Formats: sequence, structure tokens, C-alpha cells
Amino acid sequence: TSRGLGDVYKRQGAAMVKIAMDLLRADVIDEKTVLRRMEPQKLDELLHPVFDKAALKRAQVVAKGLPASPGAASGQVVFSAEDAEAWSEKKRKVILVRIETSPEDLRGMAVAQGILTMRGGMTSHAAVVARGMGKCCVSGAGEIQVDYKEKTVKMGDKVYHEGDWISLNGSTGDVYDGEVKTAEPELDGDFGAIMDLAAKYTKTLVRTNADTPRDAIQARHFGAQGIGLCRTEHMFLGERKQIIQNFILADDQEVKDKALAELLDAQQGDFCAMLKTMGEHPMIIRLLDPPLHEFLDNPRELAVEIAKLEATGADAATISQKRELLARIDSMSEANPMLGLRGIRLGIMYPELVDLQVQAIASAMADLQKEGITTHPEIMIPLVSTQAELIAVREQVQAQIDKVCEQKNVKLDIEIGTMIELPRAALMSKEIGEYADFFSFGTNDLTQTTFGFSRDDVESAFIPTYLRKKLLKTNPFETLDEGVAKLVAAGVEGGREAKPNLTCGVCGETGGDPDSIHMYYNLGLNYVSCSPYRVPIARLAAAQAKISAKGNAGHQDK
Amino acid sequence: TSRGLGDVYKRQGAAMVKIAMDLLRADVIDEKTVLRRMEPQKLDELLHPVFDKAALKRAQVVAKGLPASPGAASGQVVFSAEDAEAWSEKKRKVILVRIETSPEDLRGMAVAQGILTMRGGMTSHAAVVARGMGKCCVSGAGEIQVDYKEKTVKMGDKVYHEGDWISLNGSTGDVYDGEVKTAEPELDGDFGAIMDLAAKYTKTLVRTNADTPRDAIQARHFGAQGIGLCRTEHMFLGERKQIIQNFILADDQEVKDKALAELLDAQQGDFCAMLKTMGEHPMIIRLLDPPLHEFLDNPRELAVEIAKLEATGADAATISQKRELLARIDSMSEANPMLGLRGIRLGIMYPELVDLQVQAIASAMADLQKEGITTHPEIMIPLVSTQAELIAVREQVQAQIDKVCEQKNVKLDIEIGTMIELPRAALMSKEIGEYADFFSFGTNDLTQTTFGFSRDDVESAFIPTYLRKKLLKTNPFETLDEGVAKLVAAGVEGGREAKPNLTCGVCGETGGDPDSIHMYYNLGLNYVSCSPYRVPIARLAAAQAKISAKGNAGHQDK
Repeated sequence: TSRGLGDVYKRQGAAMVKIAMDLLRADVIDEKTVLRRMEPQKLDELLHPVFDKAALKRAQVVAKGLPASPGAASGQVVFSAEDAEAWSEKKRKVILVRIETSPEDLRGMAVAQGILTMRGGMTSHAAVVARGMGKCCVSGAGEIQVDYKEKTVKMGDKVYHEGDWISLNGSTGDVYDGEVKTAEPELDGDFGAIMDLAAKYTKTLVRTNADTPRDAIQARHFGAQGIGLCRTEHMFLGERKQIIQNFILADDQEVKDKALAELLDAQQGDFCAMLKTMGEHPMIIRLLDPPLHEFLDNPRELAVEIAKLEATGADAATISQKRELLARIDSMSEANPMLGLRGIRLGIMYPELVDLQVQAIASAMADLQKEGITTHPEIMIPLVSTQAELIAVREQVQAQIDKVCEQKNVKLDIEIGTMIELPRAALMSKEIGEYADFFSFGTNDLTQTTFGFSRDDVESAFIPTYLRKKLLKTNPFETLDEGVAKLVAAGVEGGREAKPNLTCGVCGETGGDPDSIHMYYNLGLNYVSCSPYRVPIARLAAAQAKISAKGNAGHQDK
Repeated sequence: TSRGLGDVYKRQGAAMVKIAMDLLRADVIDEKTVLRRMEPQKLDELLHPVFDKAALKRAQVVAKGLPASPGAASGQVVFSAEDAEAWSEKKRKVILVRIETSPEDLRGMAVAQGILTMRGGMTSHAAVVARGMGKCCVSGAGEIQVDYKEKTVKMGDKVYHEGDWISLNGSTGDVYDGEVKTAEPELDGDFGAIMDLAAKYTKTLVRTNADTPRDAIQARHFGAQGIGLCRTEHMFLGERKQIIQNFILADDQEVKDKALAELLDAQQGDFCAMLKTMGEHPMIIRLLDPPLHEFLDNPRELAVEIAKLEATGADAATISQKRELLARIDSMSEANPMLGLRGIRLGIMYPELVDLQVQAIASAMADLQKEGITTHPEIMIPLVSTQAELIAVREQVQAQIDKVCEQKNVKLDIEIGTMIELPRAALMSKEIGEYADFFSFGTNDLTQTTFGFSRDDVESAFIPTYLRKKLLKTNPFETLDEGVAKLVAAGVEGGREAKPNLTCGVCGETGGDPDSIHMYYNLGLNYVSCSPYRVPIARLAAAQAKISAKGNAGHQDK
């Protein structure tokens, strides 16, 4: 190899992999030692594009932010998610530049080469979403000046307009002037050999969290053995947001029904595409989870708009219409939405939403079956806290599946499981396990309720202080906490009292964290599910857990 | 007795008590049987004023609402909390009439004879607070028309002005025209005999939740043996709200210090008055619990105000000042405040608030000690989730106590305990118990997080549906749920592993619920704490739990 020592330091992951494989080939160490020597987190940098060395030498740094999501990216500046989509359709490479991002920007982020934000830390929306997508991101570049109106960003002394080229290094936080050539990562060679070794030494499954065919393909590429979590709410954004708004806000049953029919069509298309990608690998689809008011306009902005209209003497009919809309939105607002009307509770209060989603899933599976394509969807019911509500919604789900079977004259075998993401579900897991075909531990929500920590609020507000003062050993949203682990243990134990072979997995952020994966192995979980770019890391960590375990530690290989 | 059968049906509680005591005196049943025959909830009506029978016959019903809080009340109509306070100072009896009530109305509600609201159900602010105060309340009288501007309320065909007399029956929901004479309840006689019997057969302590000397006196009157929960945030309302706002919003350390000094003075006065009332009975004082933004202006109202000022071209300096205030408030707002910066987390982020409160408590105790009055305050740290944060704040609390001891040259022995109100605290109770002198289970918060139910949101939004569809057996905020009970059991067990004689009590709403009290007895709790008007009910339920228990059921009498 022509790489000097400097490159080894810069790319520790590549060096780690190469040295270990060289020693294996020289018979100096054995396979298990190779696996033990791997530091899973260092694999991350091997999965992303890097800058061409020669090109980088000539490049000039014009701004600096946080290394929010690794990789290298080069593209033309755009300032909105819509522009990112439009330019991308014309086969342009774009860098999305925003003051900060919100869920509205998701689709724009997905098509961009990279994302640059002016505000936001390592756990800001942009950073978290970009890491999940494996997309290069530099966040919190506080010195740059973004002007949406003029479509410009000032960096140093230079003003960049829409279409100007810039480049980002998400591993260092550097922003470069102009185009810098990038090279795709190599996933075979030594890296591939390490992944093969991991597969040899563990049967713990690694699945992925994926909401789009693109994510699913990426994760399959990295060796994911199925989808552990498909979040259907992400399918209700973009232009479909208006449809779901129509459903929520309409008084008229006809308007409601029309919206439901449109959503059914759209969802069925989504599921078809994703099921096709996954083939015979299982795909766990979670029924709608978030509070419905997340799909509605922001009531404060609307109230301000009304105040302005009134003060400027606008048309009375317009004002009265907006007032009515505001009253409707207000009637759905919640003081603590995370603990409100969401998950299975939506299914109880709006059964038509469950019907719609189950019909879409079953119909997609049936249609593919008729084309000769076998697929393996599973339906997951979120936020269960009592056995009775699971029984009720489970019956409803099964009735819809049966209905599709009859209509389409097919036989569909779809498992119906639940998330264990509330302390009560873990504590009552024996009762709940009697009516669940599988458990998936949702550690994001379970950590929120076990600690009483709202993730949105505390990650910036006081978790940094708590970590600095050593009041928390680690961020419990990143690494499974010992208190939360007790609930996972109780959940697994109760579930398997009801059904000894119950499949138990995890689909929270901790599902891709190496230390947590060791704990999950010892707790006896069958699989972990994580974002696509965490899959190789999780596969390695699962193999390490297996070879370092004394005895079987309660783990069930399936 | 001259009472006819009709009255017996109307006042079942009185009949129940009288018949049982008659049978005891006639040697037909024994003492334990008397206690077993009591239905604790029926005692409630014996604790409140009733209408004079003759006067009631002549009275005319003019409106009807929900029987939100039992008892009879007669007074002159007022339309604001401020007017209620002003009229009450002039020794007038008033009925506070509101469209609905908010925490701002607390002091007005406290001085009124009764409360009538146009909107709100059995769990509205008015209803819950009135029941806690033992104050007569009719809520949700939807047909009445309240006009704050004109200070009138229309009921039926008649318009009542400020100062007109009306009467309320909070046990039936009837509103009467004019003054109807009321009679105070008799708490001795047969009722007193039952309470003496209860005391004879249990050593489980019944304490009270009280935030004012008035509540404390009422609860002592009903036999409460101490204060299990004094919520200090209620002492920051009224004219003191401005002081705490100054503390929160000021940049200037001098302004902050001045606010803290004012709060210290005010708090010390509060604690002095309450400690004097309780004498040698213990008084558990909980450090500040709610998010600080609860003390600030509503950001949406402020945003609307700014929009109006801008649209009407108001003074730029005023607008800019308000914009700055709004930005400040926004920076403190939280998506899910119930799971945010509150409880002990406030103590970590704003240590000066803990110092202030502990100084006020210790100084009040020291000053009373110098007057020869022995008192027994205990300090309770809320919302603990990790051992490390309890250690940190406990050290800080002890340092402040020591400082006051030195300054005032006294010896103060003040226990420092914690609330167990998050699943993690219950799960890690052994570790937490090592640094707590006592545990108090806060079942309101513990139920919220165990179920993932925001009480503010779900009690009206879907709990009624869940109860109707039998997806919940009971409202878990009223009666201890079996899942939450598992965490209480784990909490007691862990705490007593650390300290075998650890005092464990409960101070949530369920602390006054007879079924829950039976469960708490079996879980081995030393005391329950409830609102003053639940004290007699809790005393009876505790005695019933003891005489119906097989063996000792893990209960520790202290």
C-alpha cells in the first residue's frame, strides 16, 4: 500500500481493519482475536465517501461547524428542501444549506449530497436525521450568514449564491470552497472479510430501521437481515400532509372518506415498493404513532396571522374561517404530546386509521403474492400499556387482514406484535405477551418514561450538564441505561413466560450502539434494529458479544 | 331521631354511621364489625355544611351543573379571584362565579364559600382544586351566561349582579336563588366515635397534603398526623409571581439577588406559620417542583400582542422590548414540560433556588426553636432518577442547614428524603435509599410515566373512552394500578434493602382512595398523605386494611 503514516492516523478504521486482517493472513492471530480487536465505532468512517487526497490539498476551508455526520460531499448550494428536490430531479448534486432543519425538510435532505446548518448541535434535527441517513452533515456553523430571501450564504468574505459549489467534510466539520472530488467507499476487500467473520460467529440478527426503499436497499447492502422498524408516519409528509389534514379536520364524512381512500392508495404503493425490496426478509411495519396534531399547522403562527389580519382590517369571512381552523387545532393540542393521544390510543379513538393501514399492508402483500413474489410483512402496534387495548386492536387488525384475504382470495400469514416502550408494558409483559406474536423494545420511548426525560427538551437543556457533573454516566438515549435494562429484562422474562419462544428485539437508537448490543445479547434478545449506516457496526458488536459471553447468558439463537 | 326515611336515603353516610354505632351500643356487633361495615367514601358528606331543611324547601333551583365537590354554600356573587379576596376581607360571604378557573384563581377560591363555573367537568381545575380544599363546587353549568365585563351571570330568566345572593349544593349540582341557610357538619358524636375506633385499630399514619396554614388546621381537625406533602410552588403565586419572574428573566445579578432575598423572606414567613400549626407533628416540605416557565407569561398571547402592536404601528422600543421578553420565554419553553427541567433538575441547574428554600426552612425552625416551639420539618427532593443527583443535592441541602445552624447558633435535625415518582427511581431504589432518610411515593407522576399518560391531556381526551370500553378497569390516577403497584413494591423493597427501617409513604391522589390504601397497607407503607377532606376516609380505610389483613403482610407499624 502507498499510504503513509499520516493517512493511517486520519483513517484509523481502515488501518484497524487492514492490520488485523494482515495478521490473520500471516497466521499471527485467529479469527476470534480479529473480531475482538475491532472497535466497532471506527467502522463508521469506512462506510462513507471520502475526499480525493490530491484534490483536498488544493481546497480552501471557508467555514467550520460541528462534525455532525461523517463523510465527504460536494454539490451546488440550495436553500430549501423543495429546491433540493427540484435540482436533484435534474440530476444536479446539491448541498442543502439551512439555518436549521425540521421534519418538513426530510425529503430534501434525502436527495442532497450533504447538509450544512447555521444552528444546532450534535443532537439537532439535522444531525440526528443525517446520521440516520448516513448523509454527510456539518451543523451549527455559527459564523455563516444564511439569507433565505436573497438565497445567499456568506462564509468568510465570500457570498455564495444558489448554484455555487461548496464541499463538506462531515467527519471534521470543515466547509470548503468549490467542488472537491470525492471517492466512494470500498465495501469489499478487508471490510467485507470482517463482515463475513462477524456473520460466522453470531446468529443474532441485525435488522434496520427504514422508512423508504432507498434506506432499505442501503441497509441490505450493509447486510441487514430484515426491517425491524418501518415508521409509517414518515409516509404522511410532503404533499400527503394535506390529505391527512383533510381527514383530521373535516366534519363531513364524505371528505373524510375521500381522504382515507387517497391515503390507502398512497400507503399501498409505499408498502409494495418496500416489501419488494426486502423480499423474504421480514419487514416490521409500525402502525401510525405520533399525535395527529403533528400533521396540523402551528397554532401560534396561525394565531399571530389572525391577529395581523384583524389589525389590518382584512376580510371578515377569511378571518372567521381561520379562527374556526385555529379552534379546531387548539382542541387537539396537548400539554405533553409525548404522553398523550398517540400510538395504539390513536387506533382506539380513530379505528379507521388502523383499518386503512392494515388494508394497505395486506393488499400490498396479496398483490405481490399474485405476481409470484413472497414477502414477509409483520404488523407492530405501538405504545401499548394494557392487555385489553392490545386485544381490542389486535382483533381489529386480524379482521382487516381476513377481509383482504377474502376480497383477493389469498391466504396471508401476517404476525401481529407490539412494542414494549412504556414501563407498564414491560411490567405487565406476561399478560401482554399472551396476545403478541413478537416484542420490539422501543428504547427511545422507554428511556423517556423511565427517566421522565423528554428527549426533545433535555438533550440540549440539561443532559450536557448532567454528563459534565457526572450525574449521568452516559447519555441514556445513546447507550442502554442500567435502570431501563431492568425493564427490558422484566419484559423479556414476562413475554417468554407467556410464550417460551417469543421473538424479542430492539428498535431504539441504542440498537446500533456496541455497548448496548452487548447488554441486549446478555438479556437474551433475538435481534437489534438500527439505522442503515449502523448495521455493519451492529453486526460486528453482535459477534463480539457472542464470543465474549460466558455460557449462553439466556440468549436464544433463532 | 326525628329523621324520616327520605333523609336517610339523602344522607346515606349519616345513616351508615348511626346504625352501626347503635348496633355496637346494643352489643349486637363488635368494634371490628362496625369498622368493616363502613363504606369510607360515604363519610365525605358528613364533613361538609348542609342546607337547613326548612330553608331548602322554600328555595328555588335556577340552574344545574355537575356535583363537582360536595357540601352546601350560600354567598354573594363575585366574578374574580381579586374581588373574592377583597369582599372576604370585609367579612362578606362570597360565591366565586367563573367561566372556568385557573391556578391564578387559587386564593380567591380559598376564601369563597363555594365556586360555580360555566365550563369544565368533574376533573376540571375548579372541581379538582375545590375537592382538595373541601370547598363546595358546581362545575360545568353550561346554561348559565357569565359576562365578566358587565359583572353579571344570567341563570334562567334572571340576571344576577355582583353582590346578589345565590346558593350552591355541590353534592347535587343544584344552584338556588338567594340565600339558603346552611348548618356546619358535626364532627363529634357518632362520627367521632368511628374515628376513635379507626385510631384504635391501626397504626398506619394518615398525613395530609397542605400548602397553607388553613389547610393544615383543617386537616389537624380531621385527625391528620402531620403533613406528608407541602408544595412550595403554591407559595410563589399571587403577587409573588412577579418576584420569581424577576429572578428567572433578569440578566443582572443584582436584580436576581434582590428577587432571591424577597423570596427568602416570604418563604420563611410561610414556613414559620405552617410549622407553628403542626407543632411536633412532622411536616414534609417538597422543594420547588414545576418547570420555571409556568411562572412566566404565555408566549402565544405575547406573540399575538406583538403582532397587533406591529400591525398598528406602535412604538418601536415597546415592540423590541416585548420581542426580547418573548425570545427569553421561548428559550425556556419545552415540548413536554412534564418530562423536562423540573424537580431536582431545577436544583442542579439553579442551585440558588435550593439554597433559598433550605435557608427559609432551617431559619424558620431555628427562630421557632428560640421561642421555645419544637417543630419537625423534613425536606423532600422531587423527581430524582439517579443516585448521583440525590447525593449532589443532598450535600447542598445539608450544607445550607449547617450554615443556618452556625449563623443562628442552634442545632437542627432535619431529615432529607426523596420522592419516588419515576420508574427509574423505583427500579434503582436500593442505590437511592442509601442517601434518603425517607421515601414518599408520588403516584401522580409515577402513574404518568409508567403508563405514558399525561394527566392534563388524557383525563378528558381518552380515559373516559378507555373506561367505557373496559380497556382500563379504573382511572389509574384515582386508584393505584397493578402495574404501578409493582414499581411501588420494588421501590419499598430496594429502599429497605438499603435501610431496613426506611419510612415509606405515599403522597399522590391515590393516597386518599380506600382501595389504594388497602394495597398500600399490603405493600408495607408506613403512611398515606391526602388532601384534608380525605383524611377521615383514609383513617377509616387504613383501619379496615389492618383488620382485614391476613398476618402482617409486610407492613411495618411505626
